[in-house]
Amino acid sequence: MIDATVLLRLGQTLEMRKGAAPESSYVAELFHRGEDAILRKVGEETIEVMLASKSGDKLHLVSEMADLWFHSLVLLSSHGLGPVDVLHELRRREGISGIDEKAARTGGA
Amino acid sequence: MIDATVLLRLGQTLEMRKGAAPESSYVAELFHRGEDAILRKVGEETIEVMLASKSGDKLHLVSEMADLWFHSLVLLSSHGLGPVDVLHELRRREGISGIDEKAARTGGA
Amino acid sequence: MIDATVLLRLGQTLEMRKGAAPESSYVAELFHRGEDAILRKVGEETIEVMLASKSGDKLHLVSEMADLWFHSLVLLSSHGLGPVDVLHELRRREGISGIDEKAARTGGA
Amino acid sequence: MIDATVLLRLGQTLEMRKGAAPESSYVAELFHRGEDAILRKVGEETIEVMLASKSGDKLHLVSEMADLWFHSLVLLSSHGLGPVDVLHELRRREGISGIDEKAARTGGA
Repeated sequence: MIDATVLLRLGQTLEMRKGAAPESSYVAELFHRGEDAILRKVGEETIEVMLASKSGDKLHLVSEMADLWFHSLVLLSSHGLGPVDVLHELRRREGISGIDEKAARTGGA
Repeated sequence: MIDATVLLRLGQTLEMRKGAAPESSYVAELFHRGEDAILRKVGEETIEVMLASKSGDKLHLVSEMADLWFHSLVLLSSHGLGPVDVLHELRRREGISGIDEKAARTGGA
Repeated sequence: MIDATVLLRLGQTLEMRKGAAPESSYVAELFHRGEDAILRKVGEETIEVMLASKSGDKLHLVSEMADLWFHSLVLLSSHGLGPVDVLHELRRREGISGIDEKAARTGGA
Repeated sequence: MIDATVLLRLGQTLEMRKGAAPESSYVAELFHRGEDAILRKVGEETIEVMLASKSGDKLHLVSEMADLWFHSLVLLSSHGLGPVDVLHELRRREGISGIDEKAARTGGA
């Protein structure tokens, strides 16, 4: 239970870095470069996740997935959103499980 | 704090679905179809996240990000991993912030 | 040499389909659904190319690459562009080879 | 018609670079780094194509599409394939147009 709070702390840290000088940190620079730079990172980390999965190297996969989640948080933060918004959405879907949940989301599709 | 536990519960639910009959749920079918089917979903949800971000529709972005995180959990589970592994990695990196953290990770690479 | 003309013919065919009723063809429907639908296809075909490459199945890779190039032409057409524009750009770069060419392109960026 | 031959010439150039010393050119280094490095480039150039399309900058889109096609040729070459294989596949599909063609390819799916 303790572990999951790291996402919330990271979300708060990102909020604090948003206004900082670009040269003050990796994240401040990323915010400064803007939406496309952040989307590029999210896309690239997904490619890394795919290649790590195919390589079968679990430690590598965990590391790349952490990168993907981290840059997901940066993207959310750049939109004024945070991990709580995604976690609420996931909790909202809980209990509506499996294929029924998918059907509920996509409607008639 | 309560919110973040949804990831851990989802991880447990996925573990239970892994051995189930493919027709029993969306996730059981995805596990049954195997790694490439799961990677395809992770990749496609990232595309949806990118398009949702560019559209500026925040509700849509949250929904697509939830899809991406959910299918990330499915991929982890298919490798015998779970959200805890990624959360531990993120916590391990905490405190080593910004550009220093990036440098620490990529090392001599 | 004859083979390469198929790209140009495809480019012309796409131009003719652009104004057609959505239900008249796969491509007319894709044009009708708009930019995001086309980008989704380009992104998805790239995922298929990556998975086909990792599978080592050459026939499958060729088929997925044909899908990627085809949907690239659809995207170009939706912007009022065609294969000739990309081929001209590739020809322009010819002779400026290897790493020098990359450096020339990225320049001060 | 002359324009389309640039793909074939590029395919031949790539074949010649394949055995060269990694430091001799950008492409020789990419071949040397192997499949994952090439797939990473194909994936990244697709992200650039998507972002360029959304930006509406046509010159930029053409440039990124040229990058995507170029790295597609590198990937094909790394598998002992070339542009002719993809062009043949596209020509094979010609005449079987629109949604029928898609149905023919995907079968009962």
